[in-house]
Amino acid sequence: MQPPTLPAPAGPFSKTEQAAVYRAIFTRRDVRSQFTDRPVDDATVMRLLNAAHHAPSVGFMQPWNFIVIRSAAVKAQVQAAFTRANTEARGMFPAQRRALYSSLKLEGIAAAPVNLCITCDRTRGGKVVLGRTHNADMDIYSTVCAVQNLWLAARAEGLGVGWVSIFHQSCLREILHLPEHVVPVAYLCIGHVTELYDIPELQAKGWQDRLDLDDLVFADGWGNTGIP
Amino acid sequence: MQPPTLPAPAGPFSKTEQAAVYRAIFTRRDVRSQFTDRPVDDATVMRLLNAAHHAPSVGFMQPWNFIVIRSAAVKAQVQAAFTRANTEARGMFPAQRRALYSSLKLEGIAAAPVNLCITCDRTRGGKVVLGRTHNADMDIYSTVCAVQNLWLAARAEGLGVGWVSIFHQSCLREILHLPEHVVPVAYLCIGHVTELYDIPELQAKGWQDRLDLDDLVFADGWGNTGIP
Repeated sequence: MQPPTLPAPAGPFSKTEQAAVYRAIFTRRDVRSQFTDRPVDDATVMRLLNAAHHAPSVGFMQPWNFIVIRSAAVKAQVQAAFTRANTEARGMFPAQRRALYSSLKLEGIAAAPVNLCITCDRTRGGKVVLGRTHNADMDIYSTVCAVQNLWLAARAEGLGVGWVSIFHQSCLREILHLPEHVVPVAYLCIGHVTELYDIPELQAKGWQDRLDLDDLVFADGWGNTGIP
Repeated sequence: MQPPTLPAPAGPFSKTEQAAVYRAIFTRRDVRSQFTDRPVDDATVMRLLNAAHHAPSVGFMQPWNFIVIRSAAVKAQVQAAFTRANTEARGMFPAQRRALYSSLKLEGIAAAPVNLCITCDRTRGGKVVLGRTHNADMDIYSTVCAVQNLWLAARAEGLGVGWVSIFHQSCLREILHLPEHVVPVAYLCIGHVTELYDIPELQAKGWQDRLDLDDLVFADGWGNTGIP
């Protein structure tokens, strides 16, 4: 236990600082193809993990672990697991979307110097966790907040991040030797980038357009258009 | 469909910009008690929602909606739902932690000028969504990324955000008239703040310490200490 801490002065950032935060948010991309082979040093990796570690967590549970993968052999196993699952995935789409689906590159596992699996330990903090009493998945949500912190920090550092989600969870568990109580939440490919799409790649390639924000906002309850 | 877009130059932010992004990450707090009664105007709310709307989403699904709550009557119903659930929650903790639990303020529903429920429409984008074929919860994860984007933008704007999770989901559904296929992912209290804790409040109040990051990092597989 530390000595009591009281709230300290806080207020808006300067306009320049605000612009930097919004720049990270608006220019962050899900990267599959733009990784350079420039190595990512340990100090950089640790800065990104420290950003993730400062995410909000339910009951300050900090349920995450970070498995940093540089081994070509492990990456090859993960790549094989992706390829199997992606073949299955392709078959699930209507025939008229399959050619476009197949043309999309959906992972940069081998190309990215660093892969990272962010996991959630569902037992951390004991049986009863403050704030998790009525929604058992709050620990997973906390772990996803860590992913997004890392992603924005990476953008600022000039690193791209791609989230690969097309796996059978059981394959990742086996490859990474995860215990039963630990869930793989995100598998990320990370590396330096010198260029990025200026809009999301799936939008650029005609897969899906951006929705109009105004259509997504309701006042005081579902279906009441506009903000109150 | 827009014309083909090619990757555009991108690289690291300036040191000043990087510091701003990390400042948002490191000084963001889960706020319950520091809200001022200064109103939050619609333009500010929409900037925060636009930050959320630029989160990554699986298959560019954008599964979120934003229910902006300013109604005192709706807030009162949500507050009552919290109070019921929190009484249950208190009883779940071992006797020796109950007094400390009861002393913690865990919501700012009435004090915050704006409440916001961020939901996930599990049917958006149709039956088969790119990247969600092997993990049906990727839409929920995308929605949580939107929460974290909003939280960091709010910090930069001088607004505090508190995530309230102690509800029966069925109560929130009823109060906000959510359709069956829509899940309430986060209930947030938002308002201007002039001070914030310099460390997480649960740490400051002796509930839980911060874990050592080095203990959370593994190399190439679970349990291998250190980074590769």
